[in-house]
Amino acid sequence: MLGFNRQCAVKVLALASVAALLGASADAMAQETRRERRSRTKEVKPIELSPAQVAELTKVANERKLTVDDLLAASKTYMPSGRHDDYVLFSSGGQSGQIFAIGVPSMRLLRSIAVFTPESWQGYGFAGEGDAVLERLNVNGKAVPWGDTHHPALSETAGDYDGQFLFIGDKANARVAVIDLRDWETKQIVKNPLTVSDHGASFVTPNTEYVVEGGQYATVLGYGYAPPEEYKKSYRGMVTFWKFDRAKGRIDEASSFALELPPYWQDLADAGKVASDGLVFINSFNSEMATGGVEQGKPPFEAGVSQRDTDYLHIIDWKRAERAVKEGKAKKINGFPVITLDVAAAEGILHFAPEPKSPHGVDVSPNGQFIVVAGKLDPHVTVYSIDRIKKAIADKKISATDDYGIPVLDFDAVKEAQVELGLGPLHTQFDDKGYAYTSLFLDSAVSRWTLGGDYAKLHAEEPWKLVTKTPVQYNIGHLCAAEGDTVSPDGNYLISMSKWSVDRFLPTGPLLPQNFQLVDIAAAGTTMPVLFDMPIGVGEPHYCQMIKADKLKTWTTYPEIGWNPHTQQLDPRAPKQGKEGVVRDGSQVTINMTAIRSHFTPEHVEVNEGDEITWRITAIESTQDATHGFCIGGYNINLSLEPGEFAEFKFVADKPGTYPFYCTEFCSALHLEMMGYLHVKPKTTTAMKAEPAAKP
Amino acid sequence: MLGFNRQCAVKVLALASVAALLGASADAMAQETRRERRSRTKEVKPIELSPAQVAELTKVANERKLTVDDLLAASKTYMPSGRHDDYVLFSSGGQSGQIFAIGVPSMRLLRSIAVFTPESWQGYGFAGEGDAVLERLNVNGKAVPWGDTHHPALSETAGDYDGQFLFIGDKANARVAVIDLRDWETKQIVKNPLTVSDHGASFVTPNTEYVVEGGQYATVLGYGYAPPEEYKKSYRGMVTFWKFDRAKGRIDEASSFALELPPYWQDLADAGKVASDGLVFINSFNSEMATGGVEQGKPPFEAGVSQRDTDYLHIIDWKRAERAVKEGKAKKINGFPVITLDVAAAEGILHFAPEPKSPHGVDVSPNGQFIVVAGKLDPHVTVYSIDRIKKAIADKKISATDDYGIPVLDFDAVKEAQVELGLGPLHTQFDDKGYAYTSLFLDSAVSRWTLGGDYAKLHAEEPWKLVTKTPVQYNIGHLCAAEGDTVSPDGNYLISMSKWSVDRFLPTGPLLPQNFQLVDIAAAGTTMPVLFDMPIGVGEPHYCQMIKADKLKTWTTYPEIGWNPHTQQLDPRAPKQGKEGVVRDGSQVTINMTAIRSHFTPEHVEVNEGDEITWRITAIESTQDATHGFCIGGYNINLSLEPGEFAEFKFVADKPGTYPFYCTEFCSALHLEMMGYLHVKPKTTTAMKAEPAAKP
Repeated sequence: MLGFNRQCAVKVLALASVAALLGASADAMAQETRRERRSRTKEVKPIELSPAQVAELTKVANERKLTVDDLLAASKTYMPSGRHDDYVLFSSGGQSGQIFAIGVPSMRLLRSIAVFTPESWQGYGFAGEGDAVLERLNVNGKAVPWGDTHHPALSETAGDYDGQFLFIGDKANARVAVIDLRDWETKQIVKNPLTVSDHGASFVTPNTEYVVEGGQYATVLGYGYAPPEEYKKSYRGMVTFWKFDRAKGRIDEASSFALELPPYWQDLADAGKVASDGLVFINSFNSEMATGGVEQGKPPFEAGVSQRDTDYLHIIDWKRAERAVKEGKAKKINGFPVITLDVAAAEGILHFAPEPKSPHGVDVSPNGQFIVVAGKLDPHVTVYSIDRIKKAIADKKISATDDYGIPVLDFDAVKEAQVELGLGPLHTQFDDKGYAYTSLFLDSAVSRWTLGGDYAKLHAEEPWKLVTKTPVQYNIGHLCAAEGDTVSPDGNYLISMSKWSVDRFLPTGPLLPQNFQLVDIAAAGTTMPVLFDMPIGVGEPHYCQMIKADKLKTWTTYPEIGWNPHTQQLDPRAPKQGKEGVVRDGSQVTINMTAIRSHFTPEHVEVNEGDEITWRITAIESTQDATHGFCIGGYNINLSLEPGEFAEFKFVADKPGTYPFYCTEFCSALHLEMMGYLHVKPKTTTAMKAEPAAKP
Repeated sequence: MLGFNRQCAVKVLALASVAALLGASADAMAQETRRERRSRTKEVKPIELSPAQVAELTKVANERKLTVDDLLAASKTYMPSGRHDDYVLFSSGGQSGQIFAIGVPSMRLLRSIAVFTPESWQGYGFAGEGDAVLERLNVNGKAVPWGDTHHPALSETAGDYDGQFLFIGDKANARVAVIDLRDWETKQIVKNPLTVSDHGASFVTPNTEYVVEGGQYATVLGYGYAPPEEYKKSYRGMVTFWKFDRAKGRIDEASSFALELPPYWQDLADAGKVASDGLVFINSFNSEMATGGVEQGKPPFEAGVSQRDTDYLHIIDWKRAERAVKEGKAKKINGFPVITLDVAAAEGILHFAPEPKSPHGVDVSPNGQFIVVAGKLDPHVTVYSIDRIKKAIADKKISATDDYGIPVLDFDAVKEAQVELGLGPLHTQFDDKGYAYTSLFLDSAVSRWTLGGDYAKLHAEEPWKLVTKTPVQYNIGHLCAAEGDTVSPDGNYLISMSKWSVDRFLPTGPLLPQNFQLVDIAAAGTTMPVLFDMPIGVGEPHYCQMIKADKLKTWTTYPEIGWNPHTQQLDPRAPKQGKEGVVRDGSQVTINMTAIRSHFTPEHVEVNEGDEITWRITAIESTQDATHGFCIGGYNINLSLEPGEFAEFKFVADKPGTYPFYCTEFCSALHLEMMGYLHVKPKTTTAMKAEPAAKP
């Protein structure tokens, strides 16, 4: 009857009738293409552009109004299909609560990682009402399913990124998360027991002994209450040292501790390394202890916190602090060990150094020798030397003691240099050529300047001098250089995290993306062009770190079929192929299901209204990218079942009806057929609202 | 005391003491740059590459192992800083529940739009527990804060995208959302009262009279229950016609209706236009009425639904259906008017045409003349002509009547052509040159083929023939050409929505991104290269539409200070500058707040434990990109306050303590100072857990 080519159709149908074949075909195809890619990358021969090819390129450039610099920038960032980026930028997602992984130099968003905010593509927080993800997002008994992710920190070994773990802080709710970089999933979230919100989180010590979480807006430690009049007496800052257990891949809360700090609004933090290993540096910007009150005619916070000429760089000896805790010198606040200010002063754990007013960034040079502080209301960066700091402490070069009894080191004794850069310096990064790079918020520029000391021999310029500035669009906050927080930065690339984009991209409503700009820092001297503008319209990222891609040892599938990503091991509960089924014990019903291209087993699940359901699924796939989803409409369930993954969810079947479940990740040509029905039989037929359908 | 340059510091401090100045400075800078950009774009002179420049370009290309084709692709896709893309691709975000807007040809993700899933950057669903967003995400009394977004549809006028609204369906929960493209925000979500899940949503009629939502997995209409044995008797498909009120920018639920369909698993839908205006076409792929049951040794769905040689193309006369509803011929199911199958048959509302087995895509040519159906288990596309369909209906060329009394038109009478393309054809798009483009899932390729009829004169090739195929990586689902669903497609660009990426990008854990590939379709004939691979690691997008950027009339700020985006008008409740404060009425407390760079007024809010809080904020900004955020740590509040926006949220102050609130969007150099405190005074002091802090 039909006019189409039957022979060809039969061939296809024969294929289609065996779903496994389709899967196998896709696998073979993928392998084939991998071979192609490998050979392609190897076989690319050096090109020479013929006059005709130059003419064609010129024609395209002129049609698109590209300059010669644009062509060069395009050639420096373009990635042919299948070629991998050199670096991965792990960026905070700001108030999206996520992390974004971006390839450099192509500036392509590779993946989001859900951290503090449930995300349904990843099935993060959508495994029923008792989902462990949702439970760990509770704060003080309240569901807080979002976060303001700030500072990602890659785990380090001997001060170098080791590619194993990633940490990030939630400023809004003072939490720290641990992400395992084998499967790029969030494994743990710890809530700070002392403070409502933080800021200087997270930063790691050189061997990831501790994940540092610094505070910001002072409050009454332990979630207490006090009116503004009691600010000086009752409000406090803090820094928490979360002990990291690398073998377990988890923060060990029981071995962690905090340090009470004055209510000076601690800001950024950085851990010392090499020459300064054992110290942590934190700056502050409200040593005035201003309490605002614009509604009462008082100076608003924005003015009140910037009255004094200097604030305090906090120099913290965390090894001494660790020892003091072991010696029982901490007191408990909200059950958590805290070294109080008097103990910190007595034990030499905390010193201050003056820093020009309202500093924002504090960054330690790769050799640990220099600590760079950028005060946003001072056109200089101030550089401290660790030798000078150590000597000043040893020689008791104390210029004052603050209201809380903390010694303040003499500024001239600890200062190595001040370098005038421009308006609104914020943060500093480093390269492999003895240069430092500081963001200038008010100038909207990235500045390059020379380091002194051992670095002076790496560059041709005079030390401690501005070399050049590159304009960025607009209002740069943090910046990030390749491996820029390690003991051995790479140079090559730098990201300007420009906070406003204004006119850079097509308008996207009143809410605009931010602008990540790729800056080429490969050449020494005054050449430092912007290569690429990347809109970031999925959050307002705060900070990022850039790691060499080959340091990551990412799993492409789970190691074994039946793997539980929460425990990172094989789960004995994982249903096995051939053992699927529904087990009833009174009103407790357990479903054991497997998923493979292109069906779930079982395809029909019949339960009674009110049954308590435990549903277990194993994705019995071992091919890279053969991910399945699993959702039940109306029941708020959506899983991402990656190859080998085992997942479990629970719910009460409190809504009668016939519910399709289906695979939410396009897995094969027969993906739409990968479905089944959950039948929730009503207690009484009168419970049904629906009128009968028309008769066939 | 300090060694830094005092004169320069004083200059900066003078600036800093007046925050407004900082804002003004940023504004001036932005204006300056806009001028620069305009002039820059105009002034770009045609380039001629000198030998030295060619050498430099060649050097970069060879260092990066780029081919000449790579250089050309780079030059065709690269966007210099500040230059805007030509097209916006509005893509479903799949099971992320969002929409993604992507610039073409640069393939940069411009912004996400939260639709079915709360998103904290946009403040979507984070305005307290009574948030209207969360309320509208309830399904049948359950919170379902995620969706499986499938088919975005731009609003149309006379069959052409008009840039005003965007609609999208949630397959998992059978919902349709309305997005206003003035501010790119979701304004409405309607829940289908008949079915748990859908698939063919959303598609619009040529003047956006209706937003079409087709079903997929048959269920008992009205959320009913029936066991699988009663499939044929009790399960049904459906298509819903949501009436759109363009003036209100909302779906008018009371004027909407549905059509009962047999339980054949309706799949994609497309509205007729021009020659076929008044009709809607939907295909289907389980006319076998298979019910699976692999757990009982029955054929699984993947095999069971593909047994017959043909399924049914549904041809629906929506104007007749509309009339039948007005004439009272619909019955109510779950309170919603439904035209039952007997009425549809009697009124000539529904006809079937055979289509080769397991069809997936159905797409109407720009002139409305041809309906292209791609059966994924048949290597051809089948083309129906509207003239033939109309004639067959008029001449009663009926080959059969299905089990539900619906007439089946004779295949040969309605078939215009069949074109052999390759393995796994799915979806078809059109260009301006008389070509059609069909995705080939199993071949992993985009095919270009020639249309006949009036289109034959536009191309040099024989009609109804395959012209060329371009390999894509891998497993292409939908594809999308520029303005490809309108009466006047643009050609130029096509997106291959490749479902698997496998080895194309750096591995991102077991969960990999999808791959949006930009295909250059500007040249006629056999040249059709892939220009760019874009990883999509934020969801698995299902379908997208591409609109010319200059058709969008996006607001850059809200039109007036105090604008309520929910109502799209000025809100009388919006607090005004100078009128801020806290109003108490018993335990009901109203906070009237304004936000401007860089402070909130008031900065201190004191309430008592248990108070019921109504908090109103107006962003009194009128500068593009001067967005503020507002969050309260621990209380699950985060707003995005775009310039001019008014927002309100409510909560019970049930947790005593002192809570910082702060701006979550980096707004100025004094952004960190844009904060205040919510003091929730405990009922009794013994309620406080915290021990006293150390004494100063």
